[in-house]
Amino acid sequence: MLTVNIGRIRRDIETICAFNATPGYGYTRFSYSREDALAREYLLEECSKLGLSVTVDGVGNIRARREGEDPGAPSVMAGSHIDTVLQGGKFDGLAGTVGALEAIRTIVEADIRLKHPVELVVFSEEEGSNFSLPLAGSKAMVGRHGPEDLKKAKSPGGRSMYEAAKNAGYNPDDLPFQVLRPEDVKAMLELHIEQSVVLDSQGLPVGIVEAIAALRLFEMEISGVPNHAGATPMKLRKDPMVAAARVIAKIRDLARETPSGTTVGTVGRIFCEPNVSNVIPGKVRFTLDARDVDEPSLEGFVQAVRKTLQEESKSQGVVSEMRFLGGSKAVFLPPEITSLIESTANEREIPFMRMNSGAGHDSCLLATVTRVGMIFVPSIGGRSHVPEEDTRYEDLERGCNLLLGTLMKLAE
Amino acid sequence: MLTVNIGRIRRDIETICAFNATPGYGYTRFSYSREDALAREYLLEECSKLGLSVTVDGVGNIRARREGEDPGAPSVMAGSHIDTVLQGGKFDGLAGTVGALEAIRTIVEADIRLKHPVELVVFSEEEGSNFSLPLAGSKAMVGRHGPEDLKKAKSPGGRSMYEAAKNAGYNPDDLPFQVLRPEDVKAMLELHIEQSVVLDSQGLPVGIVEAIAALRLFEMEISGVPNHAGATPMKLRKDPMVAAARVIAKIRDLARETPSGTTVGTVGRIFCEPNVSNVIPGKVRFTLDARDVDEPSLEGFVQAVRKTLQEESKSQGVVSEMRFLGGSKAVFLPPEITSLIESTANEREIPFMRMNSGAGHDSCLLATVTRVGMIFVPSIGGRSHVPEEDTRYEDLERGCNLLLGTLMKLAE
Repeated sequence: MLTVNIGRIRRDIETICAFNATPGYGYTRFSYSREDALAREYLLEECSKLGLSVTVDGVGNIRARREGEDPGAPSVMAGSHIDTVLQGGKFDGLAGTVGALEAIRTIVEADIRLKHPVELVVFSEEEGSNFSLPLAGSKAMVGRHGPEDLKKAKSPGGRSMYEAAKNAGYNPDDLPFQVLRPEDVKAMLELHIEQSVVLDSQGLPVGIVEAIAALRLFEMEISGVPNHAGATPMKLRKDPMVAAARVIAKIRDLARETPSGTTVGTVGRIFCEPNVSNVIPGKVRFTLDARDVDEPSLEGFVQAVRKTLQEESKSQGVVSEMRFLGGSKAVFLPPEITSLIESTANEREIPFMRMNSGAGHDSCLLATVTRVGMIFVPSIGGRSHVPEEDTRYEDLERGCNLLLGTLMKLAE
Repeated sequence: MLTVNIGRIRRDIETICAFNATPGYGYTRFSYSREDALAREYLLEECSKLGLSVTVDGVGNIRARREGEDPGAPSVMAGSHIDTVLQGGKFDGLAGTVGALEAIRTIVEADIRLKHPVELVVFSEEEGSNFSLPLAGSKAMVGRHGPEDLKKAKSPGGRSMYEAAKNAGYNPDDLPFQVLRPEDVKAMLELHIEQSVVLDSQGLPVGIVEAIAALRLFEMEISGVPNHAGATPMKLRKDPMVAAARVIAKIRDLARETPSGTTVGTVGRIFCEPNVSNVIPGKVRFTLDARDVDEPSLEGFVQAVRKTLQEESKSQGVVSEMRFLGGSKAVFLPPEITSLIESTANEREIPFMRMNSGAGHDSCLLATVTRVGMIFVPSIGGRSHVPEEDTRYEDLERGCNLLLGTLMKLAE
């Protein structure tokens, strides 16, 4: 039975993680940065050694193809992203990218003949670190957004994703001619770290994903009356910080009370103006990241938060707004793919559980074009998007063997 | 009866407010900035026209003296500060500085002979805008802190107040030889805007301050476990933002429940790390500015907040700390001075009320050395520390006439 070489996977990860904008403070490799360019150079050289034919689209998504026996057959894709959050970890995205590279490397080196082409896919800008537009690479790949949308997506410094991609040597104007078509692809597989505690606490090396949670991202803005912190009596205040605090505290409670029991609501970002200790704030803004595989529960949660914001704003005498910034629908992965992954795991004697994903993935976008399967490997202590993010290589090895086995079955 | 010329007061204010680092966004004149240097140049020229003898100490506090008939008599001081908060208003500090200048100008021009010297005093760095060290100028003047303390007070950019003062042309090492001694000064008068709504809502032009609230400034730091916002179930989170929100909401309630009924508690500044919408925060820090003229109520409030922080941290599984950053005791102004101001107001037929100050002032520090009196003028709508901060010139005129009259009585 063909297996991956975990030593090479480890080497790939270590090599790419050395391209790091924040050494000593986790791993930072933003799309279109110098570190990203160096990581790509390394990956493209590996693809070149394997004789893969490489195309790079208008936002930098890489597809590296090994032809199949049947020249007209659609390809089986596998891969993930290589960008990180600010000061993130070593495995988010990269594990699935180099896992797919190693799977194809193993197939090529063993000279396995497969009917279908197999393709390594490397997505740009999954995290949204640059332009607050998560999954931007896969969205471009499936035609969900084009050059005009990329002109509107701006970094905090005001540079658009369109300019950034152009500056990095890609041509976003070509995107409309590069959209992935259903007839070109048979299936897509993505291995990814779980980014939560379920597999680690169960002591399991692998999770087979059945559904990916829907996401709704909002920004709340609460405006009150800024004033002197010492001279303004409590009862005459219109303090947006108090209203924000009451809403944020309630968000936690509301998320725990939905019928599904799987809703999550996070306030991860907050800004206060003027943000000075002796001034009652004039304005407080914060984000709400809300997710659930159960969309009715998610919708109920969002409505309850909206009502709470209105009630608390009224009670504090402040004005508020809840702006929808973006989101995605829940994705249910096709049973024939999850069953195929399951039977492969059984053959290879890899313990697993079926589970849902709270995090969104490029595969959600690919699911609009083709049949998608996802394999999770454990995150130690559930930690992710932090420097401490870690996955045991023996678990990653089993996950990559499951990816290899499933890829071969889909392509044979 | 001698009266001030409100036209000149207005001209002084308008001239100095033109030295502004944020035109169109309120008035920003930080100590040791270019705008501050230009304001001082203007004030020193006015002092020079009046024949005042000027000394400037090691942090830039100005004292401009008109000698009295008795060469050995202690002086009567009057003045305020000229620095601002970021994007503040036109009257905070400046009203009392130019009010005192105009009072002395009026005395000099009318050639009034007084037994005691009168002194204009202009304090540096009252707001703490640069080094998070409020009342830094008056603290230096009364010997509360010296060169070594100024080396420890740092701007967000890492520059110390010691360096900043030195760079602006002062010599902080001289401070120990410049401390104001009780035998040098008979009394200190400060006119200031009220920075709250009491006078404006009562329609009164003047308040006579009886007490200034004690202040305690804290920073709370809550540390949890940063993690992926989508993948981490609500019940497995250790989210410092939730704990912070619950504490901030409770602070409002606790401040309203103290026995004095005059306690105020403000959370004006908050920082979150990493402050990214899709990451559960790892750390949240926020300030608590707590004040009351009634110190037992203030102490009870602070203890209740501390207990709440501990309880909420425990319930959210996070770790917290409450650090004391600084503060001041309540100051009760001597009845002989408040009575003198009151009798002067009656003679001049200026309506007034007796009141407390929620805001701290340089006069609190001067009160450790001499007898202090404070006169408040109304802030329209109670607004202060904001661009909209405003005071009617007819009210300011009456306040300045009261200052002039009291100053003459104290110096005669």
